[in-house]
Amino acid sequence: MEFKIDKETFSRALQKIQGIVEKRNTMPILSNVLIEAHADRIELTATDLEVGMKSSYETTVTREGRITVSAKKLYEIVKELPEEAISFATKENDWVEIRCGKAHFSIVGLSPEEFPYFPKVNEESLIRIEGALLADMIEKTAYAICFDETKYNLNGTFVKATVEDDKPILRMVATDGHRLSIAEKEFHGAVGPEMAKGVIFPKKGIFELKKICEEATTEELALGFMDNSAVIKKGNTVVVMRLVDGEFPDYTRVVPVANDKIVTVARDPFLHSLRRMSILSSEKFKGIRMEINGEQMIISSSNPELGEASEELDAAYSGPPLSIRFNAKYLLDVLAVLNESEVALVLRDELSPAIVKPAAVDGFTAVIMPMRL
Amino acid sequence: MEFKIDKETFSRALQKIQGIVEKRNTMPILSNVLIEAHADRIELTATDLEVGMKSSYETTVTREGRITVSAKKLYEIVKELPEEAISFATKENDWVEIRCGKAHFSIVGLSPEEFPYFPKVNEESLIRIEGALLADMIEKTAYAICFDETKYNLNGTFVKATVEDDKPILRMVATDGHRLSIAEKEFHGAVGPEMAKGVIFPKKGIFELKKICEEATTEELALGFMDNSAVIKKGNTVVVMRLVDGEFPDYTRVVPVANDKIVTVARDPFLHSLRRMSILSSEKFKGIRMEINGEQMIISSSNPELGEASEELDAAYSGPPLSIRFNAKYLLDVLAVLNESEVALVLRDELSPAIVKPAAVDGFTAVIMPMRL
Repeated sequence: MEFKIDKETFSRALQKIQGIVEKRNTMPILSNVLIEAHADRIELTATDLEVGMKSSYETTVTREGRITVSAKKLYEIVKELPEEAISFATKENDWVEIRCGKAHFSIVGLSPEEFPYFPKVNEESLIRIEGALLADMIEKTAYAICFDETKYNLNGTFVKATVEDDKPILRMVATDGHRLSIAEKEFHGAVGPEMAKGVIFPKKGIFELKKICEEATTEELALGFMDNSAVIKKGNTVVVMRLVDGEFPDYTRVVPVANDKIVTVARDPFLHSLRRMSILSSEKFKGIRMEINGEQMIISSSNPELGEASEELDAAYSGPPLSIRFNAKYLLDVLAVLNESEVALVLRDELSPAIVKPAAVDGFTAVIMPMRL
Repeated sequence: MEFKIDKETFSRALQKIQGIVEKRNTMPILSNVLIEAHADRIELTATDLEVGMKSSYETTVTREGRITVSAKKLYEIVKELPEEAISFATKENDWVEIRCGKAHFSIVGLSPEEFPYFPKVNEESLIRIEGALLADMIEKTAYAICFDETKYNLNGTFVKATVEDDKPILRMVATDGHRLSIAEKEFHGAVGPEMAKGVIFPKKGIFELKKICEEATTEELALGFMDNSAVIKKGNTVVVMRLVDGEFPDYTRVVPVANDKIVTVARDPFLHSLRRMSILSSEKFKGIRMEINGEQMIISSSNPELGEASEELDAAYSGPPLSIRFNAKYLLDVLAVLNESEVALVLRDELSPAIVKPAAVDGFTAVIMPMRL
């Protein structure tokens, strides 16, 4: 194979797959990018067998063919090349020759025959969905994804489509057992059987999907399912991710329904106060305490090695005085993705799970377990 | 003690000493900042017994006194406080109370009695030197400082003042045994006995000094010596650093005098080519080879696991063909601090130390040991 490509395009194309390639080097071929040259374009494919990405770029191909080379090393080389046309050609025994300006590289590749199969996508089976909508929903749930690999069914985001009040609703849910986040948005399009039942997107795939959605938020994505994988297509890029094969817990039972004490507080002062109060918390004493009484909320923390801190905030609350303790990080994570200016804390008592959500709009519900006093 | 200070000033003051305080926590008091309140100003002091810094800030003091508190925790707290006046007061048993807006902190301090003595500086014994001059000389030498703590006499920069052609010259030298860097600049001012003999500034002190010099390059610094320490004063800040107690090697014998082959090459293409060629080098095969023949320089590298690379550069050279091998990082470190557009490599043969310096101006000489082929 032999093709020419400008440095900028090649560099960006290689950057895009750096998050996909396998870093643990258990199978050397998974550290490589598959480069295929067709009549008028090249295709770059990377996969770690869980998440795969294939993108195509128009360029001048003089000889068709395929090769795989180290994705990391090739990216490092291309990044440092001068801003000129790069010529890329295969030689005997899977060697690759790269020329640019007066620089010349011969690097050793691996046979493309060993590269894992990347599924052909049937375009007609895909439904369309707005990139910005997905990006926002991922942002609002991804912080709660479980990183404990033994709980494999929580290592991702549960995605389900339902119909409520005659409107199709897309729902994303993530939880790590200590907190849970639910984002919901109305969407346009048909609901297939997989989405109606609900599927678990793996966390690596979710983060790659978020990057793609953020690249151009006004564009639409195409989404579909095949062979227990999700397929996402945007422009010239296709991402395939193997769905997590497990049962997602019944999150509807985790969202408390008997919480009757609603405290409303302005987001920014609440966020900044929590940040200040959490300075005195440590690995061992990471809790902050909230005492709510009428219009007053007192946030406090203490640490036997350092001292204590407290701050008074304005709040709106009409129930009996209430005291509850939280891991400050869990509250801060929710406030970081909640864009509205007023926050509602929906509480029951000091031991029951608490709901945190925007005070005025629906579509985002976070549940946090309190800490025992 | 009790004083009020605006958040911005206090935050910047505390940031400035973060690099000085001891991180290893062998003596808890060295992780603390000493805060002293006088009639109309506060003074902040930090030290790790090797390098110390004291700065003073005008502010409203209502009660004089002294206390020490964790420099890191206090900075974290002050950074997060709202943009309002901060009130700082000591309580019984070395507790400190900080109030700002509606936030309130009580943190535990340590008695100021245990804080190490910080010398009083006699202003009259100091000489004046331009900040930009020192910053440039430190930049040009610091990369070669030895980080191997067993070679304590190389863990710093040798500073010496001499008179050449009736001009006072300041010289800085650093070496790690594999490379050496010498920067020289004419300066104005008297040369004391310490500078005439030459002193070794410790590396931590050199990096703090560079930060101070870069803050305001047009300002002059005052420099002096006392009790085997160097004293640097700039504006309201005094830095004291204990000089390295050892003999600096005779660097004049390291600079080769019989090198007669001069290769001139443009800095930027040389730098970029070295970066590209070093991609194929690894921990084990980190060398690059330079072959020079007339107007042509070929830089190449190879790595049995990855492949090989080469690039041709324009050069000016009139001697016999020459081949020499270097650790690419050593050349890149020199080129990174060499601002001139043309570089001269002054060589003898493939095993002798090489000189790298600007082609057209004096005042900077780097010596690099080649690698054996």
